[in-house]
Formats: sequence, C-alpha cells, structure tokens
Amino acid sequence: MKAVVYKEPFRVAIEQVPDPEIKHPNDAIVRITSSCICGSDLHMYEGRTAAEPGIVFGHENMGVIEEVGSGVKEREVGDRVVLPFNVACGFCKNCLGGFTGFCTTVNPGFAGGAYGYVAMGPWVGGQAEYLQVPFADFNALPLPPGNDYEADFALLADIFPTGYHGAELAGVRPGESAAVFGAGPVGLMAAYSCVIRGAAEVYSVDHVKERLEKAEGIGAIPIDYDAGDPVEQIKSHRKGEGVDKGIDAVGYQATSAGSSAAGGEQDEVPNIVLNQLIDVVSPTGALGIPGLYVPSDPGGVDPHAARGSLLINFGKLFEKGLRLGTGQCNVKQYNAYLRDLIIAERVEPNFVVSHEIPLDEAPEAYTKFDRREEGYTKVILHP
Amino acid sequence: MKAVVYKEPFRVAIEQVPDPEIKHPNDAIVRITSSCICGSDLHMYEGRTAAEPGIVFGHENMGVIEEVGSGVKEREVGDRVVLPFNVACGFCKNCLGGFTGFCTTVNPGFAGGAYGYVAMGPWVGGQAEYLQVPFADFNALPLPPGNDYEADFALLADIFPTGYHGAELAGVRPGESAAVFGAGPVGLMAAYSCVIRGAAEVYSVDHVKERLEKAEGIGAIPIDYDAGDPVEQIKSHRKGEGVDKGIDAVGYQATSAGSSAAGGEQDEVPNIVLNQLIDVVSPTGALGIPGLYVPSDPGGVDPHAARGSLLINFGKLFEKGLRLGTGQCNVKQYNAYLRDLIIAERVEPNFVVSHEIPLDEAPEAYTKFDRREEGYTKVILHP
Amino acid sequence: MKAVVYKEPFRVAIEQVPDPEIKHPNDAIVRITSSCICGSDLHMYEGRTAAEPGIVFGHENMGVIEEVGSGVKEREVGDRVVLPFNVACGFCKNCLGGFTGFCTTVNPGFAGGAYGYVAMGPWVGGQAEYLQVPFADFNALPLPPGNDYEADFALLADIFPTGYHGAELAGVRPGESAAVFGAGPVGLMAAYSCVIRGAAEVYSVDHVKERLEKAEGIGAIPIDYDAGDPVEQIKSHRKGEGVDKGIDAVGYQATSAGSSAAGGEQDEVPNIVLNQLIDVVSPTGALGIPGLYVPSDPGGVDPHAARGSLLINFGKLFEKGLRLGTGQCNVKQYNAYLRDLIIAERVEPNFVVSHEIPLDEAPEAYTKFDRREEGYTKVILHP
Amino acid sequence: MKAVVYKEPFRVAIEQVPDPEIKHPNDAIVRITSSCICGSDLHMYEGRTAAEPGIVFGHENMGVIEEVGSGVKEREVGDRVVLPFNVACGFCKNCLGGFTGFCTTVNPGFAGGAYGYVAMGPWVGGQAEYLQVPFADFNALPLPPGNDYEADFALLADIFPTGYHGAELAGVRPGESAAVFGAGPVGLMAAYSCVIRGAAEVYSVDHVKERLEKAEGIGAIPIDYDAGDPVEQIKSHRKGEGVDKGIDAVGYQATSAGSSAAGGEQDEVPNIVLNQLIDVVSPTGALGIPGLYVPSDPGGVDPHAARGSLLINFGKLFEKGLRLGTGQCNVKQYNAYLRDLIIAERVEPNFVVSHEIPLDEAPEAYTKFDRREEGYTKVILHP
Repeated sequence: MKAVVYKEPFRVAIEQVPDPEIKHPNDAIVRITSSCICGSDLHMYEGRTAAEPGIVFGHENMGVIEEVGSGVKEREVGDRVVLPFNVACGFCKNCLGGFTGFCTTVNPGFAGGAYGYVAMGPWVGGQAEYLQVPFADFNALPLPPGNDYEADFALLADIFPTGYHGAELAGVRPGESAAVFGAGPVGLMAAYSCVIRGAAEVYSVDHVKERLEKAEGIGAIPIDYDAGDPVEQIKSHRKGEGVDKGIDAVGYQATSAGSSAAGGEQDEVPNIVLNQLIDVVSPTGALGIPGLYVPSDPGGVDPHAARGSLLINFGKLFEKGLRLGTGQCNVKQYNAYLRDLIIAERVEPNFVVSHEIPLDEAPEAYTKFDRREEGYTKVILHP
Repeated sequence: MKAVVYKEPFRVAIEQVPDPEIKHPNDAIVRITSSCICGSDLHMYEGRTAAEPGIVFGHENMGVIEEVGSGVKEREVGDRVVLPFNVACGFCKNCLGGFTGFCTTVNPGFAGGAYGYVAMGPWVGGQAEYLQVPFADFNALPLPPGNDYEADFALLADIFPTGYHGAELAGVRPGESAAVFGAGPVGLMAAYSCVIRGAAEVYSVDHVKERLEKAEGIGAIPIDYDAGDPVEQIKSHRKGEGVDKGIDAVGYQATSAGSSAAGGEQDEVPNIVLNQLIDVVSPTGALGIPGLYVPSDPGGVDPHAARGSLLINFGKLFEKGLRLGTGQCNVKQYNAYLRDLIIAERVEPNFVVSHEIPLDEAPEAYTKFDRREEGYTKVILHP
Repeated sequence: MKAVVYKEPFRVAIEQVPDPEIKHPNDAIVRITSSCICGSDLHMYEGRTAAEPGIVFGHENMGVIEEVGSGVKEREVGDRVVLPFNVACGFCKNCLGGFTGFCTTVNPGFAGGAYGYVAMGPWVGGQAEYLQVPFADFNALPLPPGNDYEADFALLADIFPTGYHGAELAGVRPGESAAVFGAGPVGLMAAYSCVIRGAAEVYSVDHVKERLEKAEGIGAIPIDYDAGDPVEQIKSHRKGEGVDKGIDAVGYQATSAGSSAAGGEQDEVPNIVLNQLIDVVSPTGALGIPGLYVPSDPGGVDPHAARGSLLINFGKLFEKGLRLGTGQCNVKQYNAYLRDLIIAERVEPNFVVSHEIPLDEAPEAYTKFDRREEGYTKVILHP
Repeated sequence: MKAVVYKEPFRVAIEQVPDPEIKHPNDAIVRITSSCICGSDLHMYEGRTAAEPGIVFGHENMGVIEEVGSGVKEREVGDRVVLPFNVACGFCKNCLGGFTGFCTTVNPGFAGGAYGYVAMGPWVGGQAEYLQVPFADFNALPLPPGNDYEADFALLADIFPTGYHGAELAGVRPGESAAVFGAGPVGLMAAYSCVIRGAAEVYSVDHVKERLEKAEGIGAIPIDYDAGDPVEQIKSHRKGEGVDKGIDAVGYQATSAGSSAAGGEQDEVPNIVLNQLIDVVSPTGALGIPGLYVPSDPGGVDPHAARGSLLINFGKLFEKGLRLGTGQCNVKQYNAYLRDLIIAERVEPNFVVSHEIPLDEAPEAYTKFDRREEGYTKVILHP
C-alpha cells in the first residue's frame, strides 16, 4: 500500500510499504478515508526527535473496517470508525481509571502509545491506505455510515478531544472566565470547548491574525500578544481581575512577542506561557495544560530546557493556591460525547481545517505546513 | 493583657498589650485556653520576613467566648471554640467556593488573612490572653464544653486540617499508595490523614529519627533520606513501582541529605522535594502541596529562588500526566469533620504535641523550638 | 408601603403594610424594582396551603439597597442586587456545604427559609415596595448598576437557578442526551440549562403548544404528551434508546394526558412523571428533580398522596442503577455564574417572561395567571 | 467436572457437568479454589425466581488460570485471580463509564451479566471445579501467588465491593455519620467500608444478635430494631440529630420488627428500610442502596410489590433534598483497591466468613444456610 514515509529531516515521500495484517485476534484493519497531519508530526519531520527514516506518520486516523480478527466482538467489517491517537488496551490499571493516554500494555516500559510516532510503540501510522488497529473493540469509535461530517469526525482522533481535555483539566464550568494561550488547531479547539461547556468569557491568545480571527468567530475574545503583555490585556478587559481558569495549548516551543508574519525574530522561551498563566489566573483557579512539554529536548534553549526543567514561578502559584493538570489527552474519555455533539449539529469543529487533499500531495503539504505557507493550518489527507 | 510580642530577630517577650475589643457587630472576644507555636512563626522569629517588632504572634488558637458583638447570631458567651488560622468572611467569591484560605474581604488587596502573621491583615495573634475574632458565626467552630481533648482540638486550628489538605489536594483514596515528604507536625498530620482516608500504603520521608518513629507509630513506612535517595527507597519497597499520590509537607526550605542530628551541613535545595515527588509518583497520579512556597524569599539560595522561581522537571511532570494542587489550607472545609473524628475517638492527633506550657514560658520555648532542642516539635501555650 | 397581600383563596389585594426595618445589624433594606409571581405562589393563592390571610407574597426579588445595618460589610446603599428566594445565613453546617436552600438558622426547627412563603420563616415577601434582607452580605448578589437586563436578572432569584439545579442534580454533561418533563418557566430554564451545559439532545415534554414552541426556540426537541406516551416518543426519536439524564420540572401536581387548552379533563397523577423518568432514562443514568414534592398535601388524590407517599417503580430504578437528586435549589451555588452569562450576553433567559406590569395590577395578574389566561406564564411586577 | 446443580426448589446436588472450554479467543479457564454461596443464590434455591433446574450456581469465584485463549494478552496460565461477579466486556458505553455492572455486551438485551445466575446471561456458575471467564484480561483481577488471604480475596468477587459500593453511592466521607441498615454479609461489609473511609460514627441496624456483635467488633454502633424504632434509637444516640448518610443493605425482602431467633413472625415490608432511611438521614444527605430491589417479584406482598412498585415517602425525601444511588455494584471500580488494602493488612474482611467447606458439602450447606442454622452466614466452597 501507499504511505507517507519519513525519509530525512524536512522530507517525506509517498512510498509502497507492506499492507498491515491481523496480528492478534483483537486487531482490525481499517481502510483509511481521512488522516490528518498534526503539528506534532512536524517535530519528527524537522528532525528534532529520535525518529528514524522509514517510519510511517499519521496518528489522526479514520476510515472503514476492512477486516477483523477472531476476537473482535462488536466491530464489524464495513463499520465507519475514528481511532483515538492513543493506542490503548482497555484493561490495564491506567485504562481502567480512564487514563487511556497512559496505557501500560501497548508500549512496554512506558505509559502511553500512539500510531506513527517515535517512542510510542510499534504502531504504524495511518497516513496510508490501511491501518492495523489493536484492541479494535476498545479503540474504534463507531460513526454513522456514509460520508457526512467527515472533516468533523476526523478531528475526533486528536485535536478536538485534546482541546477539550484542556478545558476538562482546568475544570471550566458554565459562567466562568478562561484564558486559552495558543490559537493553533488545539488552542482553537480548547477555546471552542470552553464555549461548549458554557464559559461566560473566553480569551484566546496568539499573534497570528488568521488564528485570532477564527477564535473571534467562535465567540472568543482575541488577544494579540504582539500588541502587548497578554496578561495585562486580559486584566484590562476584566477591570483588573484575572480569569477563573487558564489553558496552555502552546507547550514548550512557546515564543516571546515578535511578529512572525513580518519575518521578525522570536525567541523560544519555553516557560513563558506557564508563567503568564500563573499571572493571569486568579487565586483558587486552575490550569489545564494539554500543550506538550517533554523531558528531553536536544534543541532546548539551555541545558535545563534540554532536559525539560523549567523555571516556574512556583511561589506565586502556591500563594494563589492554584491547581494544574497536564498530559496527553485520554481521547476515549470524550470522543463519543463530542461525536454526538457533531451528529446533533450543535458543534462544527471543521472550521479549523484549511486543506483537504489526496494522500499523494502529502509531501508538498508537509513542506508548506512546516513553513506555515498559504494558510496551511490543518490538513486532512484522503487516501 | 499579656501576650507574646516579637521584639527583634530571635527574641520574643511576654508584654502587656491592650485588651482586644469588639470593633464590629460580628466580632467576638475569645479568652484563649490554648495557642500553639507553629513552625511558620519561626520564619518571623528568625527575622526572615518583613514582620516588624511589636507584632503579637499566634494563629493556632482556641478558647472560650467572652463577649459577642450585636450581630453575632449563633455563637454565645461561654462557647468553647477553636479558630481556623485563616480569617475569613464567609461571603466573598472565594469563601463561597469553599476557599476560605483565600478570603478577599479580611485583608484588602490580597486573597487570604490570618491572625498574628505578617502581611496577613490587621488581625492580632492569639498567643495572648484574649483574641478578637471577626465574623464570629463563620469563624468560630463550636466544641463540646469542658476540657476534654484540649490538645487534639487545638490542632484543628491549623496543622491537622493542613495535613489533611495535603491528602485532599492529592485526592488520596482508599487502597491507594502515597508518599509524604516531611514528617514534621504537618507532615505527620498528612500521613495520618492518608491513613484515616484508607490509604493502603503510606511512606513518610524525613531524616529525623524521632519523627520517623512517630510516622511508624501511626502505620506509615518510614523512609530516612539520609540513608539514600528516597525515591529509590520507595520504589524498591514497591518492586520498582512508584506511588499513586504524593504530598509535599516540606516547602521551599527543603534540604538535601545530611544528618542534622550529627551537626552535618545540609544545603537548602528549594526544588528538591517537588522534583522527587515528580519522580516517585506514577503516571496519572497527583501531588498535594500544602508545604509553603513563597513568591519572595530574600534569603533564597539564588536570585531565582529569591523570587520564588524554581527549576521544575515540567517535561517529566507532563509526560506522566500528573496533576497538582497547592496553597494554604481552607481550614473550614475540614475542621468540623476532623473535630467529629476526635469526639468519636477514632483519631488522636495529639501524638505530635511535645510540650504544653504556660504562656509565660513562651520566650524560652521559642528559643528551644527554633534550635530543635529537647525534642521541641509542637508546643501548646496555655495562657 | 404598598404590598400584595393574600386575603382569602383566589384573592390578593394591594394594601398598605408597615415599611420593613433594619432589625439586625446584618440586615439591609432593598427598594424593589422587580418581583416575579411564581407558580408556587399559586399554591397559596388557591388556598391549598396553610397560608393565613395577611401574608405578603413574593420570593423572586431584586432591587436597589436603600439602607444597611451596622454589620453589613461589603454591600452598600445604592447597590443593585438580586436576592435568592432562599434566605440563608452562610455559616450553618448546610450553608457551609453549599446547601443554602437548607439553612438551619433562618427558620428555626426547619432546614430552609424563603421570603413571603408559608412555613418558610418570618421573612416578608417582596411583591411590595421594600424588602428586609437578612445577612445581606451573604444573600444579596450584586449586579451592574442601571437598568440593563432587568428581566433576565430578576429570573436569577429563583427560576433560572432552579432550572439549572435540575441539570446539576442530574449531572448533565456535554454531549449527553436529556429529557426534561415540564416546559413551564422552570422546565424551560432546565432545558435551557442543559443546552448551556453542552447537551447534545434535549427533549422537552409538555402539552401546552406555546411552551413547546418556546422549548423548540432554544434548541430542544418538543414532545407533546397529549400526542402519545412521551417515553415512547423519545425512544422512537432515539432509535429505541433512552436518554442519559432526566429532569422532573413538574412535581406532585403532574397530570395525565388530556388537552387543557381544549378544556379536557386531566387527572392529577402525582407519580406519573417520576415513573416516566425511570422508564426513559437509560441504565446508569441520573434524575434531577427540582419539581416540588411535599410531605403533606391535603388535596392529594388519595390518602398516600396526602402524606407525600407515592408508588415509585423502585425495582426498575434499582435494576437500571439510576441515581437521583432532589430538593429546593441552592440558588447561591449558581446565581453569580448565571449572572455572568447574562452580562456576557451568552444567555437571555427573559424569553420565558410573558408580562411586565406595575405592582398595582398584581391582583388581576394573579387571577389571569391562575387561569392561564392571555398567555400569562411568567409575570414580573415593577413596584 | 463436579458442580453444584440446582435440581428443584430447596434442593441442589453435586453432579458431573461438562468441563468448560475456551469458546472465544479472549476467554480463560479458571480452576476454582474458592467459590462462595451468596444470599442471592437462595432466591433461586427457594424457587422464587425463574431459574430452571440444571443451572450451575456460583458468582463469587476465585482460582488459578488453567488455560487462556489466543486473544488473552496479560493474564497467564498459573495466575491466581478473583473474578467480579459481574461479567463485563470493558468496551461498551457502560463499561467505559465504569459501570461494569451494566455491561451491554455480555447479556444481549439487558444491561448487566453474571456467572451462574438466572437472567444474567449464558455464563455458567463457579461452584464447580472450573469456570469459563470471558474477556479474561478485563475480568480477572490478579492476586499474589500462593494461598495467603484466600478467604479475604474470595470476598472481592462480590460482597466486599458491594458493601463498599453502598458507601460510595452514599458518598460517605471522613468525619461523617452513617446508618447502615442490615448486618448480613453485605451490610457488615458496608459498615466496614464506612469505617475504612474514615466515618466518625457508623450505626449498624439488624436484629440478629451475632450480626450486631460482629458490627460492634468493627467499630460500628449496633442498633437492634426489635428493641424499638431504629430511627428513634439512632436519633437518640445523636441528641435528636439524624445522620449524614444512609445505606440500605437489606433490599426488598425487608421485614418489620419481630425476633426471628425466637421463632416470632415477621411481616415482609418491602419499603420499610427505604422509608426509615428517608427519616433518619438529615436534610442534604444521601442514600446508598446496594440492597436488591427487583422489577418483578411473583412473591411480592401485594400487587404493587409484585411489580417492584413501592410506596416511598417522596415528599419527605424532596423536602430534605436527599440524593440516592442504586444498583448492582460495579466490582471493577473497587476490587484492585480493596485487594491492596488486604495485602497491606489494613483490612481483614474474612470476619464475616462462617464456614469453609469442600464442594461436596454444598448441598448440606445450602440447606443449613437457608435455614440460618448453626451460624451459617457466609460459606466458602473449596473445590
């Protein structure tokens, strides 16, 4: 079959790779209809990880079941399904607790597995024609047959639940105020999730004009951090008050102010968003942190950052009595509920999708997405 | 009346100060029967804070109501009561949410007030004969009349609820394992609270022999960090596994290994406990942090620490998907329940009390407690 | 001052009554700008309660503070405020737990107090020019000055929080399905609250055309129970499935099918809604029951009903593993958050208001409202 | 193999039945080392259910894995395991929500399955030499190898988690008071669970002397309902107050006062415990109801009871604002945590076990247990 194969830094190619097979009775083979390119794929693409050439990318996958193993009970050939980016078993201690992003079965020696991602287990990615799905009864979320809502459903594999996870970790409740740092795809989904959960005021912080416009389009208040300290801007909107809850949808590659659109240089400041959140969230509040932080970053700005150690204003955090939650999204906690909101047409997350293209165009799309050219923000590949 | 007055670093004196008065209709005057010396009083005593000479110490107070203002509805003269160290109004947004440690009414411009403490509002301390208690209906917890359980009840003002708060912030549940760093009075109360809540295994980390013995006495497993890396010791006990939950009952004045008893030097390493907790708690776990961290510490070991900024292994924290909660205890969330456990004789927290002495002996007790002489760990003054 | 005074069954009058006074230091006097007539006022109006002639009605009150007692700390003369129908102290065990609808201080011998309601304590109602508000710091929710959103804010006294309480008791979460029985003012607010909380599907069950239209207007699916068994209708919509959550916004005066509009007779069947909810909610689901059930109903349809004892399909409830929550709304748990949603213009609950009239027209309004004439569904009096 | 086979009302026999086989790749075969007789087995034994002759009893099973299917991933031959009485798949909507007692996969058309029980699916019981366990990775809880704690671990299949479920449904928290109705095996485990969770006061209501003694032995306060209204007795202990939480460990076969030991007649009054709980629990409290209620009881005391419809004092329940939770225990929510408490020797639930006997003696044990002869309260069969 054809697949997107990583060749070397800044290059992927469409190549023939072996078709996936049923290797365990609980496996299913899914014919991919949509597989998104994720911002986190770019970490591998840029060569900033230990990913070896030959790896097939793709952890945001949906499609139709083509074959099932003898142990699969409820899923059937022909079922249209979307797969959480987390591969999970459903029966280890973490899965039982709902922490399916920290499964200890699927990636021995580590808590958490994923398709097509370095160090996340042996699971081949889905930017390809077919995908092997383990524990298919547990991992495959059924969808209504047909083609409706394809771009919305595809986002259930990762970014919609991941954004929602930020709101859940922060405990955003009806009538509260929230600040979401980052208005990329995950940040927009986090802001959207705050709105869905009934937040009264949602601030969306970024410095890319198109993103801030999208944030405004879903009812968030855009804050351009190139226009001044975002903490002060938000407090000014709120007559000096902070917000109830904060979400970090940026992660360790955060940058200081400076207009990227204008070609201005920005410094990577990995702790800037965390400390801004500590500033802007009111005492007794909470922070949800779905944005990625890593324990080892060879490209870190200093030796501490290189091992994931950041200067956090912990004294201030404590004085305010803040709580925080972190980590990969446990997609299965949310995906059925978000699916039902899509089916009921109460939500339409596809507003973040910028491009839908055939699989063959993936190499070009990676190049442009990496350079943020031509409005590339969220790309769905249709094999 | 007589009171413990701060004179200069390392010196307090018993002096006459004006009797407290009803200043607001909701005030009550309490005749103090017990007021404890808290480890946090030593920060002021040692001159490491902005506390000015003349301040009356004492935030762990209990006694009998002597007088009530015209607005006091339910509390009456003669009621035996214990007062949370937090002064709170009961009606601001934070109090309504249960965050009485972050009251915005009693200490204008700041979230949180306390008796007898620098920067915590105008409330005179209770290491004295009498105490002015604002919002008496809200703040005074009634106790059974008489003298029973005096030393147990006195601990309801601060350290028993504060230790319990650590277990609550970490969400310790029946059957879980927990590691409690620090076995001073708060740490022992935290370990005790884990036991009360039904934890299966509780590890208590310290390096003072007497403390570790007390921890063992309540069913915790003592870990002496002078005997080796406490994280490795705990994991070794657990066949390589970490614990479900962790509690930091040490705070920013944490030290590296080194036997204080033997006069050995120890370095202050303010982030050591936080990073050890991140190591020892298993993925998907949680940290409760009642141990104090401050946003400004003139005596900090480096310029970052001096403003409360610490190097935290945030990449590891995120990879494990940990949650954490911080801040002053909201005493009123727990004190009535802990009182009822004392009355039912299911708990007896007074095992941490080392000395009960008259008010007049306070100056000597401060000296000895500060030097940790003669087993001084928790002192109750009886005016 | 002028007030709505109950004279005898089916008659109220506007009469002069003594002006309220500050009786306790924590009292405030509020000049009423809006006071709603509630469906529960009709119970007294119709003479089905022990209410004695002379009682002043009105528990849904808002206005401007005219005077404060010496103990009031944060509220000031001139503040625009809305008062929860529950009178509460803020410091009893129930208030501390957030159960302000069950205050044990304000109505001795009973858990719960209210303005202008039989057996709910000595608090005079607010369908009048002025109102005495006890524990004013606790009870008075501040609003932005001016006249904006007057009809929305007035609903914060009771029906908007009470409807929301139904959704909270049932634990309605984003993406879930819910059935709300009753589309009167509280039922509509409950359905609206489900939508605000992100429910995917909300069914609204009633048999009054105008109500069902309003339900449809906020995004609910109307179910006319005169058109057939509502349980079957809902399950038919859902391909045989039940719903995740159910809300009873009807209470003990539930009726069987039969078109009231057409003058048809309906039987009062006090357990019909409860048992329909048990039928329509799926196993593992939950029921929120803000609709009123009483322990003594002299007009009950049989001797059991007369003492509040109903035949409940408890075997089915257990087999399904359902949970349920009941009781008066604790308005203070929600009103600040719902206020902020109004201010942010994310919600506009005033769609349920049918009439806004001067106080003098109250007697006529009671007559018409009781007969459900001329579209009278929710009336706001402006003294 | 040999098994306990139901022959006719009041008679079981040890008979040869076919050995179980691996029928699905996720199955395991367990060699039974312990299988308890449950009070609910007596419903079938007495002929009060639709159970047909030939059924093999036994839903409280533990043993050693003898064989695994090709899909079983983590469990291995030789593993010592205990099986929840609920058979569950781990991936249906209810299992994902933690409601493993309401699995929709294992018993088509119904939410919930069990071994060896009428209408609970095709799963043969474990009062036999071997047992077929479906979804073995999900259902089999691993235990330390060897024979230690056998009688404690055996109780993890049902009654220890079921008792704990009562405390969880009621939300019993540290420092609270609770009343547990029924001190049979489940009631004792419920009272024990309240103690484990840190309750301050636990009342245990029964009228069998031996049971009340056991309750007292674990720190509960025994209340003999033959000695007077248990509600009044409890309130008298508490100076007129009710309790925070209540647990019904009796169910629909509740009886009125009357000494069974003395051969006195007792009337079955199926709603008596529910209404006593509504009386004894304080306003804002909660009820946990693990005691069985059924939607169809041919032997019901009246036509309503025969279809599971009971007269509940719903008006009082509502006035008090009570919450309640019901249903079969979701054993997997608790069993690993309770196991760890056993291993840590913090709990020792085997105090409820009265007899441990060989499988061959089961027929005699059924007879005596049914007649409550010779102290038969909880019997473990060891095949």
